[in-house]
Amino acid sequence: MSAAAIEKAADELMANYADCIDDGRFDDWLELFTEDASYKVVARDNHDRGLPATMVLCTNKNMIRDRIAALLGATKYNFHYDRHVVGQLRVRPRSDDEWELRASYAVFQTSDEGRSSLFSVGRYDDRIRRQGDRLLFCAKTVVVDTFAIPGMLATPL
Amino acid sequence: MSAAAIEKAADELMANYADCIDDGRFDDWLELFTEDASYKVVARDNHDRGLPATMVLCTNKNMIRDRIAALLGATKYNFHYDRHVVGQLRVRPRSDDEWELRASYAVFQTSDEGRSSLFSVGRYDDRIRRQGDRLLFCAKTVVVDTFAIPGMLATPL
Amino acid sequence: MSAAAIEKAADELMANYADCIDDGRFDDWLELFTEDASYKVVARDNHDRGLPATMVLCTNKNMIRDRIAALLGATKYNFHYDRHVVGQLRVRPRSDDEWELRASYAVFQTSDEGRSSLFSVGRYDDRIRRQGDRLLFCAKTVVVDTFAIPGMLATPL
Repeated sequence: MSAAAIEKAADELMANYADCIDDGRFDDWLELFTEDASYKVVARDNHDRGLPATMVLCTNKNMIRDRIAALLGATKYNFHYDRHVVGQLRVRPRSDDEWELRASYAVFQTSDEGRSSLFSVGRYDDRIRRQGDRLLFCAKTVVVDTFAIPGMLATPL
Repeated sequence: MSAAAIEKAADELMANYADCIDDGRFDDWLELFTEDASYKVVARDNHDRGLPATMVLCTNKNMIRDRIAALLGATKYNFHYDRHVVGQLRVRPRSDDEWELRASYAVFQTSDEGRSSLFSVGRYDDRIRRQGDRLLFCAKTVVVDTFAIPGMLATPL
Repeated sequence: MSAAAIEKAADELMANYADCIDDGRFDDWLELFTEDASYKVVARDNHDRGLPATMVLCTNKNMIRDRIAALLGATKYNFHYDRHVVGQLRVRPRSDDEWELRASYAVFQTSDEGRSSLFSVGRYDDRIRRQGDRLLFCAKTVVVDTFAIPGMLATPL
């Protein structure tokens, strides 16, 4: 794949990631990760100082799957819509088959009364890997500016 | 037009759409629609359940023009600035001459006192059509997460 | 550089601009400007009516450098994180070596208690120039919708 093809595929992957969460299609969302993928949510303050503390830590796809199942159980009692707005993407090669993917995001939530509010801002500091003709997340790291989460973290960021 | 040229033209069309609203250039905005274009605003809840109820429904360009005229009359008494921030675009072919165009958006409004707040989040689920060397909206569907509109819907989303 | 290469480099420049501010890397941020670069923050209302009043006005890179030094001194007493989400970019040629670069933005701030809120929305109406194989800002104009700044303008927009 050419550099341009990688950038396009990375854009597609990130757009799918956000769409799957916003549409509540979590089975599809899981398929965007490699089997050995990690998924982390970490407060920016800790991340920038190299501290190990995380808000969410899944070190393989099975853990991500379990986490989602738990969240979906909880969500029944906390109805809301998510909406991701993802800014410009930056793609950097790491090896022949892996790239870094970085983007700022804002996530908004809408209550069952139709009122929307800012839920979280931060950045994605991801690693993506080519598998066959697809790109998948092999390490998703959500670095949240907003570490005082209003309400619980009921869906992935 | 190549796939890359379509993507670029679709990006341009969406950027123009947002700019025209944010700049208050509604005559230019109207020129982004085909004569038979529809313009709909629908609450996500209804849309996802396939319910026919819409918040705004214009089934051709003349209706869109009338709607805008009515809104602009009302806006005199409700001064504000709009600001669209549109996320990643996804373009999918539908036929030789039509494509689906989808993007998440956040719209912010600023009062005459210069204070800004979140007004609406949702997604565009559009259809665009090639006419000569241009792309135009033939079906604009704004699926709003935010169905409890704070104040009236004084400008198009 | 081809038109596509310019668009890619402009995208990179804008992404770097936002990252440098959000990461607090202001030395790197300064390197994105030409020596004769201007940096202006202007209220949209004034800008659109062609009024000369500005909220911030630096007419060369030394003034920008001084301004940053002053802001960083003040920031010690006003801790926060910035987060830019920049929308679609539009690039237009002005001459062989200069382009206009326009984009809408939303900036969010997060307090030391981890709470995030909308800080400013508006648009960038920039001019960028090729210097060797790089693009740099030669005129950065931040047109803010949000002219009632909540708190002081402690970092550049």
